Amino acid sequence: MPETPAEKAAAPVGPTTASQNPAEPTTAPTTWVLTLACEDRPGIVHAVSGAVVAARGNITESQQFASPDTGRFFMRLQIASDTGRDALEGALAPVIERFGLEASLDAAGRPRRTLILASKAAHCVSDLLFHQRSGHLPIEVPLVMANHDTLRDLVEFHGVPFHSLPVADPEQKEAFESAVLEAVDAHDIELVVLARYMQILSPELCEALAGRCINIHHSFLPGFKGANPYRQAHERGVKLIGSTAHFVTSDLDEGPIIEQNVTRVEHSHSVAQLREIGQDQECLALRRAVTWFAQSRVLLDGMRTVIFR
Amino acid sequence: MPETPAEKAAAPVGPTTASQNPAEPTTAPTTWVLTLACEDRPGIVHAVSGAVVAARGNITESQQFASPDTGRFFMRLQIASDTGRDALEGALAPVIERFGLEASLDAAGRPRRTLILASKAAHCVSDLLFHQRSGHLPIEVPLVMANHDTLRDLVEFHGVPFHSLPVADPEQKEAFESAVLEAVDAHDIELVVLARYMQILSPELCEALAGRCINIHHSFLPGFKGANPYRQAHERGVKLIGSTAHFVTSDLDEGPIIEQNVTRVEHSHSVAQLREIGQDQECLALRRAVTWFAQSRVLLDGMRTVIFR
Amino acid sequence: MPETPAEKAAAPVGPTTASQNPAEPTTAPTTWVLTLACEDRPGIVHAVSGAVVAARGNITESQQFASPDTGRFFMRLQIASDTGRDALEGALAPVIERFGLEASLDAAGRPRRTLILASKAAHCVSDLLFHQRSGHLPIEVPLVMANHDTLRDLVEFHGVPFHSLPVADPEQKEAFESAVLEAVDAHDIELVVLARYMQILSPELCEALAGRCINIHHSFLPGFKGANPYRQAHERGVKLIGSTAHFVTSDLDEGPIIEQNVTRVEHSHSVAQLREIGQDQECLALRRAVTWFAQSRVLLDGMRTVIFR
Amino acid sequence: MPETPAEKAAAPVGPTTASQNPAEPTTAPTTWVLTLACEDRPGIVHAVSGAVVAARGNITESQQFASPDTGRFFMRLQIASDTGRDALEGALAPVIERFGLEASLDAAGRPRRTLILASKAAHCVSDLLFHQRSGHLPIEVPLVMANHDTLRDLVEFHGVPFHSLPVADPEQKEAFESAVLEAVDAHDIELVVLARYMQILSPELCEALAGRCINIHHSFLPGFKGANPYRQAHERGVKLIGSTAHFVTSDLDEGPIIEQNVTRVEHSHSVAQLREIGQDQECLALRRAVTWFAQSRVLLDGMRTVIFR
Repeated sequence: MPETPAEKAAAPVGPTTASQNPAEPTTAPTTWVLTLACEDRPGIVHAVSGAVVAARGNITESQQFASPDTGRFFMRLQIASDTGRDALEGALAPVIERFGLEASLDAAGRPRRTLILASKAAHCVSDLLFHQRSGHLPIEVPLVMANHDTLRDLVEFHGVPFHSLPVADPEQKEAFESAVLEAVDAHDIELVVLARYMQILSPELCEALAGRCINIHHSFLPGFKGANPYRQAHERGVKLIGSTAHFVTSDLDEGPIIEQNVTRVEHSHSVAQLREIGQDQECLALRRAVTWFAQSRVLLDGMRTVIFR
Repeated sequence: MPETPAEKAAAPVGPTTASQNPAEPTTAPTTWVLTLACEDRPGIVHAVSGAVVAARGNITESQQFASPDTGRFFMRLQIASDTGRDALEGALAPVIERFGLEASLDAAGRPRRTLILASKAAHCVSDLLFHQRSGHLPIEVPLVMANHDTLRDLVEFHGVPFHSLPVADPEQKEAFESAVLEAVDAHDIELVVLARYMQILSPELCEALAGRCINIHHSFLPGFKGANPYRQAHERGVKLIGSTAHFVTSDLDEGPIIEQNVTRVEHSHSVAQLREIGQDQECLALRRAVTWFAQSRVLLDGMRTVIFR
Repeated sequence: MPETPAEKAAAPVGPTTASQNPAEPTTAPTTWVLTLACEDRPGIVHAVSGAVVAARGNITESQQFASPDTGRFFMRLQIASDTGRDALEGALAPVIERFGLEASLDAAGRPRRTLILASKAAHCVSDLLFHQRSGHLPIEVPLVMANHDTLRDLVEFHGVPFHSLPVADPEQKEAFESAVLEAVDAHDIELVVLARYMQILSPELCEALAGRCINIHHSFLPGFKGANPYRQAHERGVKLIGSTAHFVTSDLDEGPIIEQNVTRVEHSHSVAQLREIGQDQECLALRRAVTWFAQSRVLLDGMRTVIFR
Repeated sequence: MPETPAEKAAAPVGPTTASQNPAEPTTAPTTWVLTLACEDRPGIVHAVSGAVVAARGNITESQQFASPDTGRFFMRLQIASDTGRDALEGALAPVIERFGLEASLDAAGRPRRTLILASKAAHCVSDLLFHQRSGHLPIEVPLVMANHDTLRDLVEFHGVPFHSLPVADPEQKEAFESAVLEAVDAHDIELVVLARYMQILSPELCEALAGRCINIHHSFLPGFKGANPYRQAHERGVKLIGSTAHFVTSDLDEGPIIEQNVTRVEHSHSVAQLREIGQDQECLALRRAVTWFAQSRVLLDGMRTVIFR
């Protein structure tokens, strides 16, 4: 299979990768994002920064975290360099080897190829597409897929192809999920966003999309899991409601949390009002999670996330 | 038993009550707070406001709520009047009778007699006593009781008697709870505040204090019930932690919620840091709940609260 | 000129108005919103609630405020009634007369006829039109006017006519403002929203639209008035940025404030990032202000607003 | 003058300093905080991390920022090391020399010696002393000075000496400021906190305390500078009020901002209520600013601050 643009740009760093991009110009772009994760031990920062210096790079932004829970070390660097990817990869290769780094090098600001799954609710889809189009959200969306046709006009207005397939029985669900995997493959998808897609993914699909599928949960987890959280919140008389953006795992609603927010509500709010208020929160939490993911600011640390904002 | 000042000031409104306060001056204070609850039906507001007018009162603040869930109607009025309690009670009596109102009339700003129960943690006790002393919290605290002696100096510095009794076994617990009930009686206590009192109350004590006992739960309920919520929050990797002030019922951590708040945390926060951050939230949520209760702004609507802020 | 639907629905309450709506059915809608303002004095609530009872209405929501600064009294009532507008107006007329009330009676939920003025920035326009279309914002928008053609596609996608006129010199500005006033007249406009319309209105237009024109100021007033507030905020190194929705007056950026919000920023945010972050705040503050206005929750008290949320 | 403990612990890093601490044990504490600032250029991170590795240190936390406005580079490192200060200083000395670093090395968690200046208002003083005593605020307070005697009991309850001097005329003010400078000297003060000290400092004192004196401004700057900001806020009808903690400079209320916060208010809040609400904000903003300063998380970048939270 021929290499895709996304693979070229975001390929894992390593000796074998460097030679795969012969056509890429070596002088642009001038800013790179490097993320890495490994077992924590002394000397990592020095070795990595040495490789950056050797490739005539300048570190303009750097964040790191050593997790006391897992003993893992995480780092995100922005590097200004006029020597290009090959030089950086070449310099980093021995460090990656020595420390067993899981490293990823990417051009800063490169839009992530994103597939959006939706259902009938418009708010998150509209918010994502509007901000993508405004240039504030570093994703490109080659396709929106949905199990209803409701959002066709909205999606097509934003110039994005829309594909709907019914999911009314197990066979249709299987067909839908197969179509998702085909689309992921065909469009070099790097991120799948469940923008209020109201279906539970099969364990197989969760597994296939592990670490690159973000869901918005319409509640401040771990409260009010399951169906109709706004009704639950109303009955319980809570004074704050919120939403949670998280990675999808086969353990429903329990994937690593990326972002949460809440807003204040009052006794006079009906269930319908809570839902409406909550939708603004959902848009914001999902958009922040997608933005951070697209900027390589989200790293996985077991069941927790490290967010390098 | 002779009538206490608290009973005089906060007595339920009714025909029989009016004559019990012969010595109270009829011209002061000039502002009253009236709360009422009843089954919702037309004409309540008109009848109540008519009684206020008849007693030469002027309504300066008014809030109401008709609960669609329970069919109950709730109202809180502030009334400026120079005719005194007797005139107001006399005018309201037939309205109370006609609509079956649960009514309470109180002098605005009168400090509520409050018993604080504590354990070892100082932050909530210190916050309450400091703000009480500053004149910002309309309570008076005749006694702090605790199951440890840790906070004696702090409490006594604020000029409040401190009484500690060990609660190390069931018998001691029973003795402590008996002492609480005696103190409630002896000091005309209107509100009991569990300021991080780390013991579970017996069902009997919960029952005896129903509707006048506020707890601070060190979590944003309904998430992370039970022990060590900050450890739970850390393991789950949440991005917000919060606290909940609620009425105590025998159903642990499930009483009607009065106030909640949250604050943002990050992956780098340890469990100890989460706890410390959470303590500020606990102080604020508990203080707001106590303030609102003391201002007659908290009414019970089944398992929910109506908060007339 | 024949009476418009908007005038029929929102006409000021009074004896002469009642007879102008002969064709309006007397049994629907069943919920009304009554707002009133007058000099504060005893008996208003009783008189108004009496009129409501007389018209077989039931008060389902009520808020009031007596302003110590201006001596004005403000009230907002929601009234369930099956007798229709005529009966309510007839019953209220003598009370309006007696207390000199400025009263307005409206069907609850009736969309306000809203003219949006825009320039090139899309975020507020998109947010308003999206939520209007979703049914969450009780306005109807017969027209968007702009001094650039940039937003035509966006506006027309939402099914709203778009009219652009250049404003490059004083004559063009005058022509634009004349067109605004004509549109206000032709479309029975009740609210004009400046959705990041980057022109200063003439004092004449401010006067003509007094009390029904809302602007979003891209700053947390009174800090950073004037041009390029995000640059000012950056230079000053503030840790929070915000936005302000306010009524337009001829005193630039000084009209009565309806809503404000802020969000946290950091030293690493560039001016461009502050602007982007601020735009979310602008959308939310403007939408809340418009919603509250459309629900008759915003009343003017001199240079301040009373917000009955 | 003999060297003080504070100087020993927090001395600027450099070749000449290393030999001044002969008595300090070389194996404890095991965690160090290194902050540095210099003109931005490539290789700094590599050189610094190399020195850390050479001293057998492990970088456990690292934050950096290159300011596009000033061209300055800032960094904060936490370093676990069992080799002690001498080894670290020795390894860092050539790097400091080469890059012209302004460096500071300190034992992590070492309490900063802090002088509090107060007036009559108790809330900030109480909050700081309570949290210091609870072990949550890494400062030690050898003295509180005030221009009134009001807070003596509060301060002495917390076991802190209290010294009051009247400031009623220019001579008394000069005497007070002289006493401040003497106390700074006598107690090796590293931080002066104006905890609602209501006097304007002389330019000379501002200069003498530059970069180590924090004030809490009772407003969300730059709005409502000057006297009685809560009255100004009330008149303007703002919907949010806030506070600002900032470094003191001779340009009144214009020093670099460290922390800000806001809270929501309503039309019904009186000036007195705004003030009371604002005081909670003041406590929190000031405490956060002091905490960050004491943890070496606040660096100056011209008129802005870099906050490494």
